[in-house]
Amino acid sequence: MRIVLEITYIGTNYNGWQVQDNKPTIQKVVQDAIRELTKEDVKIYASGRTDTGVHAYKQVAHFDTNSKIKPDSFAFALNPLLPSDVKIVKSYMVSDDFNARFDVKKKTYLYKFYINRVELPLEVNRALQVPFKVDKEKMHQCAKLFIGTFDFTSFCKVGKEEKDRVRTIFKCELKETDINHFEVEICGNGFLHNMVRIIVGTIIDVGIGKIELQTVKDLLIQKSCSRSLAGRTLPPYGLYLKNVEY
Amino acid sequence: MRIVLEITYIGTNYNGWQVQDNKPTIQKVVQDAIRELTKEDVKIYASGRTDTGVHAYKQVAHFDTNSKIKPDSFAFALNPLLPSDVKIVKSYMVSDDFNARFDVKKKTYLYKFYINRVELPLEVNRALQVPFKVDKEKMHQCAKLFIGTFDFTSFCKVGKEEKDRVRTIFKCELKETDINHFEVEICGNGFLHNMVRIIVGTIIDVGIGKIELQTVKDLLIQKSCSRSLAGRTLPPYGLYLKNVEY
Repeated sequence: MRIVLEITYIGTNYNGWQVQDNKPTIQKVVQDAIRELTKEDVKIYASGRTDTGVHAYKQVAHFDTNSKIKPDSFAFALNPLLPSDVKIVKSYMVSDDFNARFDVKKKTYLYKFYINRVELPLEVNRALQVPFKVDKEKMHQCAKLFIGTFDFTSFCKVGKEEKDRVRTIFKCELKETDINHFEVEICGNGFLHNMVRIIVGTIIDVGIGKIELQTVKDLLIQKSCSRSLAGRTLPPYGLYLKNVEY
Repeated sequence: MRIVLEITYIGTNYNGWQVQDNKPTIQKVVQDAIRELTKEDVKIYASGRTDTGVHAYKQVAHFDTNSKIKPDSFAFALNPLLPSDVKIVKSYMVSDDFNARFDVKKKTYLYKFYINRVELPLEVNRALQVPFKVDKEKMHQCAKLFIGTFDFTSFCKVGKEEKDRVRTIFKCELKETDINHFEVEICGNGFLHNMVRIIVGTIIDVGIGKIELQTVKDLLIQKSCSRSLAGRTLPPYGLYLKNVEY
């Protein structure tokens, strides 16, 4: 049978999702726990990779097993075999043609940052410190620009990208969750490499006055097309995979 | 001159605020940093102690110095001398009769908890896991009961307490910050030992049906008076000192 796991983790101590030789990864610790439980040589497939240091409220992955364990019991059976920074929130059975990677309809990410001259202990490895004044209204306006269907060539890591760089963003919203603490929630049908970190980097660069709103508009309609005209790539530790929908 | 520091910290790796022999405490690391900076044998006085594991968004403390450093520069001069889990957000001069402990008018605490059968990695050492169903409406009602002036004998650590256990609570509010993630914000003119952790423990025990609202009312008006009839003392890691007002 095919089992789906909903996984939550702190990415700080891991080299991202995907198994790599001799490096701790989320895929490896989850796979090791399943193997310990079922004694099967299982491989798991996630909705997508997350980079080193990126967190997840909900990553989704599937694997196949002949185990007699009840589908919804996998979560509780696996958790004691997992480290405290990786846990399974939920497990359930799906049909054999379900694929956690290829059947994704929507993904939602959060990026958290705060404005302060001091790096706050409670936000270390959790949110990006921005030690500058920002124009909140301009950041709100910039976030809205990304909603729609665009070629995101200027907003992804240059190089090994897919040829089709057109993606649809359903939601891109800046919220002030506490005074000077912000999160950007982005929901789309798919994301290119570093795309969320560059979009939010662009929103912040607009907020601090480094990039004009018009430049962002031009890059999105590809009047101009240049990775270097968009914002910087933000560090991974402010990024959270929030939800995956099928 | 007398300098006030606004200090933020993660309490996880410290034995609370107050200096103790051979144990890491917040007071010690801040005092050591000031001594390293000013070469003076300084002692600092906080608004109150926090227990082992308790965090602070804003703890307030004062010390006296003959240093030529500008008052508002202490924050930036001290931060490089402090560990990453303790930082000074702000520093400024006050009159010599200001006392960070005795002049407190109001203190505000937060207690964070979440309802889930799984212990969430992103909340470890930050919020309490409650693995039971709760009646949210009853928790809201219970929180409101604590607003007012009462003798909190039944809601403090029995033993070495002050004789005057009457305190005034200005605000006691339960908020659902995200689905099944809660925080209780409590503002009062003073707090007895473990008082916030017992009040929120009582709110949760009412939510899970272990304590009746009427019992809480009776304890507050001292129709009955018993520590054991109130809720349990919650662990320290969900507790945050949020603000101190003078």
